[in-house]
Amino acid sequence: MKIDGNLNKIGEWLKGTGPNSDIAISTRVRLARNIDKIPFTHWANKKQREQVLSLVKGAAENSNLLKGSLYMRMSDVSELNRQFLIERHLMSIEHAQDPGYKALVIEPREIINVMVNEEDHLRIQVIQSGFNLTDSWRLVDKLDMELNQTLSYAHSIKWGYLTACPTNTGTGMRASLMLHLPALAMTKQINKVLQALAKLNVAVRGIYGEGTEALGNFFQISNQVTLGRPEEYIIGDFERVMHQVIGREAQARKYLLMKEKAQLSDKILRAYGTLKSARIITSSETINLMSSIRLGVHIGILPDVNIKTINEIYIMTQPAHLQKLEGKILTADQRDMKRADLIRAKLK
Amino acid sequence: MKIDGNLNKIGEWLKGTGPNSDIAISTRVRLARNIDKIPFTHWANKKQREQVLSLVKGAAENSNLLKGSLYMRMSDVSELNRQFLIERHLMSIEHAQDPGYKALVIEPREIINVMVNEEDHLRIQVIQSGFNLTDSWRLVDKLDMELNQTLSYAHSIKWGYLTACPTNTGTGMRASLMLHLPALAMTKQINKVLQALAKLNVAVRGIYGEGTEALGNFFQISNQVTLGRPEEYIIGDFERVMHQVIGREAQARKYLLMKEKAQLSDKILRAYGTLKSARIITSSETINLMSSIRLGVHIGILPDVNIKTINEIYIMTQPAHLQKLEGKILTADQRDMKRADLIRAKLK
Repeated sequence: MKIDGNLNKIGEWLKGTGPNSDIAISTRVRLARNIDKIPFTHWANKKQREQVLSLVKGAAENSNLLKGSLYMRMSDVSELNRQFLIERHLMSIEHAQDPGYKALVIEPREIINVMVNEEDHLRIQVIQSGFNLTDSWRLVDKLDMELNQTLSYAHSIKWGYLTACPTNTGTGMRASLMLHLPALAMTKQINKVLQALAKLNVAVRGIYGEGTEALGNFFQISNQVTLGRPEEYIIGDFERVMHQVIGREAQARKYLLMKEKAQLSDKILRAYGTLKSARIITSSETINLMSSIRLGVHIGILPDVNIKTINEIYIMTQPAHLQKLEGKILTADQRDMKRADLIRAKLK
Repeated sequence: MKIDGNLNKIGEWLKGTGPNSDIAISTRVRLARNIDKIPFTHWANKKQREQVLSLVKGAAENSNLLKGSLYMRMSDVSELNRQFLIERHLMSIEHAQDPGYKALVIEPREIINVMVNEEDHLRIQVIQSGFNLTDSWRLVDKLDMELNQTLSYAHSIKWGYLTACPTNTGTGMRASLMLHLPALAMTKQINKVLQALAKLNVAVRGIYGEGTEALGNFFQISNQVTLGRPEEYIIGDFERVMHQVIGREAQARKYLLMKEKAQLSDKILRAYGTLKSARIITSSETINLMSSIRLGVHIGILPDVNIKTINEIYIMTQPAHLQKLEGKILTADQRDMKRADLIRAKLK
């Protein structure tokens, strides 16, 4: 497997299927784990970090679930490829910085990835398409147990799994959903919903995680509780809350279709017209317009557009993807033109 | 001939031909005339105004150039039809107000019209397609002479033709061009050009005359000199100045095509995409987007669009036209939808 083996494809988690995939783009569950008796990454010296890399590499090689995976040291990965991996949601922005003594394991379908020596020694992550919390939890749990056969985790009976940041201590688990909430935004209910979520120990972020904007009405919503309860209960609670948010968005879509169909069609079809016509387009305009197209497909206003095409455009119009597809470094202006070309070709 | 006999057509002056018609949409020359020994309209009593109406009606019936024309008293014309006539540039906004004792003569091809009892007893007007000052002057002059065979004009040897407003006294002539100057606007030269024109006794207005905005980069530019020189000289001077403005716009278009073709194509093709996609659109957005389409046709970026179609959209998407085409009164919201439907049908 090569880093860019899937350059022309999208990961399984973006296939656009799975429960409620008209609203829940994808589900992610990640576990933070640290190896016993080795200091957390930021306190570890080079030798200790090297030891972590080697231990995790060995454990990954013994894992069934990681069979066929690519293990790469970040220092061997070019800046462009690191950006490429971030764009595919296969690692965090932080993991791309200071690449020394860091590694990444990615599984061929891009459902599983493991960051090594990020904030914690291991960040084990599963991403799946749709509203798939229980399945994703089961898969990440299974992988965790496999790795645990080789690795000895830092764990305390009182606190549970020990992590670099105390907010992760306990289960070390964070579950998150990428939700597409355009109708809540159009009906101006989104802020109320987000405020209600804030009170329920749930955090809301933009597409690329903490500190990023909610472009295109995509919201990454994650549970904040890690301590004091078993994973299944935490997942169950989070699932119920998310179920309600998804229900609110579905209602808002029905309302718009009933009461403001003309305005809604106008917005969606204009977005489609612009994307099929533009010769120059930035990535934020793309994400915003594609948000309308995605909604249009799901509510039947653009029945002929394939959701897979939309997800391909979403992934492939990002800067590193565009440059890898083109086979050369492009300036921002050049990318804006290539992006427009790619979108027109995909929507033809 | 009926008022709305040309509802589904556009007047000859919008056929999109004639010299420099890629920049000069149309040429208009109008003469202000008053009948001798009758007070100017605003000072005349009802009987005197009635007398003017009757004299002009008789003169129009004797005119060869006005053969087949429609003579209508404004008080017999519904508000919708008055708006319709304004939209077709066949009379002024002022002429539609207080319709008592006012009349309008329109010739079937819509090249000639005569307003009776507007500010002056007669406002004789010729509109033609393209940059056509000399021809238009000749035609209005010929009509003036025909009418003068029946009517006796208020005239003084010292001042020339006497008019209600002293700014028209002398020749009573005003020549104007409707210019489309999108490239001067895009290259940010337009204000400089307009400032230079202001110094040359030339006035600049928006599409519907005095006090209206320059929507879609359409500028109605008219000479302000009426006194002290024969008409041919005034026309000649104005023609030279307008020739320069047209030349500047042509240069700016070439510059944009050479230096900013991608941005220009993007703007034009996006406008086209939006017009072909929108389900709701206001008239000002229409005029602004159609401005880009018009430019696109003339510089070869949209070679398949017909300039006649563009002019039809420009005329027929106006409120009164839309309502007459639909056969009923429409609210602003309904018009915005019908307008979008009409545009999509025309651009198909």
